[in-house]
Amino acid sequence: MSDDVNNNARNIIEPSILAGFQEFLPKEQMLFTRMQDLIRASFESYGFIPLDTPVLEKSQVLLAKSGGDTAKQVYRFEKGDTDMAMRFDLTVPLARYVAQHYDSLVFPFRRYHIGKVYRGERPQKGRFREFYQCDIDIIGNETLGILNDAELVSVINATFEALKIGDFTVMLNNRKLLGGFFASLGIDDPTDALRTVDKLDKIGKENVLEELVAQGVAEEAAEKIIALTSVSGSPDEVFGKIEAMGLCGLGGSFDEGLSELKTVCGYIKLFGVPESRYCIDLKIARGLDYYTGTVYETKLNGYPELGSICSGGRYDDLASNYTKKKLPGVGISIGLSRLFYQLCAAGIINADGRSTPSKVLFIPMGDTLEYTLGIAQKVRAAGIACETYLGEGKLGKKFGYADKLGIPYAAVLGSDERDAGSITVKNMRTGEQNSYESVEIFIENIR
Amino acid sequence: MSDDVNNNARNIIEPSILAGFQEFLPKEQMLFTRMQDLIRASFESYGFIPLDTPVLEKSQVLLAKSGGDTAKQVYRFEKGDTDMAMRFDLTVPLARYVAQHYDSLVFPFRRYHIGKVYRGERPQKGRFREFYQCDIDIIGNETLGILNDAELVSVINATFEALKIGDFTVMLNNRKLLGGFFASLGIDDPTDALRTVDKLDKIGKENVLEELVAQGVAEEAAEKIIALTSVSGSPDEVFGKIEAMGLCGLGGSFDEGLSELKTVCGYIKLFGVPESRYCIDLKIARGLDYYTGTVYETKLNGYPELGSICSGGRYDDLASNYTKKKLPGVGISIGLSRLFYQLCAAGIINADGRSTPSKVLFIPMGDTLEYTLGIAQKVRAAGIACETYLGEGKLGKKFGYADKLGIPYAAVLGSDERDAGSITVKNMRTGEQNSYESVEIFIENIR
Repeated sequence: MSDDVNNNARNIIEPSILAGFQEFLPKEQMLFTRMQDLIRASFESYGFIPLDTPVLEKSQVLLAKSGGDTAKQVYRFEKGDTDMAMRFDLTVPLARYVAQHYDSLVFPFRRYHIGKVYRGERPQKGRFREFYQCDIDIIGNETLGILNDAELVSVINATFEALKIGDFTVMLNNRKLLGGFFASLGIDDPTDALRTVDKLDKIGKENVLEELVAQGVAEEAAEKIIALTSVSGSPDEVFGKIEAMGLCGLGGSFDEGLSELKTVCGYIKLFGVPESRYCIDLKIARGLDYYTGTVYETKLNGYPELGSICSGGRYDDLASNYTKKKLPGVGISIGLSRLFYQLCAAGIINADGRSTPSKVLFIPMGDTLEYTLGIAQKVRAAGIACETYLGEGKLGKKFGYADKLGIPYAAVLGSDERDAGSITVKNMRTGEQNSYESVEIFIENIR
Repeated sequence: MSDDVNNNARNIIEPSILAGFQEFLPKEQMLFTRMQDLIRASFESYGFIPLDTPVLEKSQVLLAKSGGDTAKQVYRFEKGDTDMAMRFDLTVPLARYVAQHYDSLVFPFRRYHIGKVYRGERPQKGRFREFYQCDIDIIGNETLGILNDAELVSVINATFEALKIGDFTVMLNNRKLLGGFFASLGIDDPTDALRTVDKLDKIGKENVLEELVAQGVAEEAAEKIIALTSVSGSPDEVFGKIEAMGLCGLGGSFDEGLSELKTVCGYIKLFGVPESRYCIDLKIARGLDYYTGTVYETKLNGYPELGSICSGGRYDDLASNYTKKKLPGVGISIGLSRLFYQLCAAGIINADGRSTPSKVLFIPMGDTLEYTLGIAQKVRAAGIACETYLGEGKLGKKFGYADKLGIPYAAVLGSDERDAGSITVKNMRTGEQNSYESVEIFIENIR
């Protein structure tokens, strides 16, 4: 009865989405979806288990540990009496999940999760408030062998090989090595120093030195810091340099970290990862209050300005907020939305013109609808996506539809084809036209 | 520096998720993911284009039309100055998307969207506040031929055939037919009457009659309503009954609806949908202020109590809130989370014991890690998911890992296998053990 109100002079609302949010047109969406599929297939090929947790969680659970920036960025609200928040990463939900379902899980628990996360960051180019993360983690019960750290490099290698976005290098370091080194200089909390060192490539050694000294680091120590964190190269090169610098036997956690790094590099070789695909870079630290051993970053060799396209590391204790069980783990994450934006912007990937999964457009001509629909079903049954043009109109309009969507083949089926059981098809790219005696032969030829 | 605070006597927070939300253990997740994959593959095989819109939208855009229950259920909040809401279905975002990107889209626009939607409903068994919908829609520009209505029945048929959850029937009706019929009885707004009629199976004819009369419908009219809406069966049966009831030529939109229904049924046959898979049921109406022509419901024949497992219909104008362009469409939706819950609860589907994509667990024994890792890579390259047990421990524990995860094969590779280049594998289900001369032969045998 209140429908009258709705029907009167309806206002048109300008259709738009929230600032900092993103959606794709079909061409880009096809490409994005294909990348997601390749990543997922790579993760699954290593036996990682799919996981899908709620986007909304209890604020008190989700924000157990968070402070500062994270808390400010999180989408948090109340509905009824419930204080809830949208997940800002996939790691905290993983920790909560593993603690909650501990008794039902088999360890080591190898899971992947490809899902959207939410951060109300200041909008800027290539940073989104809703974005996809593609994570894998291996969680041990009490212990987790260091072989797992090496396996993740194999997974990164397989995944980016599958994505075909160019040469890449996984860069390794070890947080114990860094921690021990800084401790030997009397620096117990190397957070600020490492943040400064991270700018080596950008601002140069002189400026880094100046900044370190300004932070209260003695000049001699600052020089030592720069000397060590400037070291990068193949495992053999780096281990050689560390020895040449007289650092072996430095004590504390340095030697333990060095030993772990050597072990991990040895195993990576056994996993068959080509030597050109990984190196050590002693300035890599990642988030400082989280990782405790191996850390990874990955760069596209031709595009260092993209920053790390896949990062992660080893942590001692995943879920200490939620359980007293010790759950060490190692994981990596691909920030797919940002990576996709960067790859498009740099021209590294391009939509190939396909805006649809359809490989063939069937166009019935005359009284051939039944024949055409039957052919389409057979092509589909052979695993080839296709569609039948179901509208009226001129042939040019129908070819135009195939052309605009980037459908590779268009087959006009008239009474001749129907009577012969044949298929005449136009290759939309080359314009070439071919006839096939039967649908089976057609299928073999367009596979 | 504030780390000290965090480190002191950390409280353990009970890990749990919000009431009405859902997540799966690996075994169920594997099954759920497989169903999603089958649905997606079926949708793509018909050339539907993937779409992925933001979960959060501007409230003023998302809630342009909504009132009543929807508005109360929606997760809506402010962050900064922005009033935003989580999507409660995939249709409103589609309308917004098509209006916003009208100039960039090719029509008819065939899209599918599998995604989570949010409704703060009162929690009850099998109803979730976060749930997956799997939607396809075909949107025309100004017009959309009725052949599309028939194609969707073909898509439903292919999709539920692929899901292998038992015999099903797509039930069709037409809103114009219903509207015209009610108008002929002097009932312009049949909303209440149709809601009552919908209870025919549950409460019986007598009670429906009583309720209709209580709503102010004349007894004679109420009897006519019950007579018509009780009609169901094969198209031929139903059209015969309508004729026998003397309703042909009733006028108004009745005849138009009847003609559409006849046309759609004729086309469904051409699409090759078996006649046992569809029927007409004249009491089906779906949401009343939305659909304008063909409407669909789908039932599992053995489980009518599950209600409709896939519903949808034809609408005249998708996006009138966002554009003056006329965009007619036809669509269907599977409420996958609810369906999955129902299928599990009814014992129609069961997790098959696989908790991982891995088909083989490789277990190195002795100094065979490199050999084992190499074999695993070859198996992976052949498209078979597998993993290598990377931990220490007794063989029994490693077999136990394969067993608990439901990995079908476990291959212990010792120095004998390495030296011979062979593989010895145990079938975890049968206990049978086999040796294969080479990885290639192994791969052929476990495909």
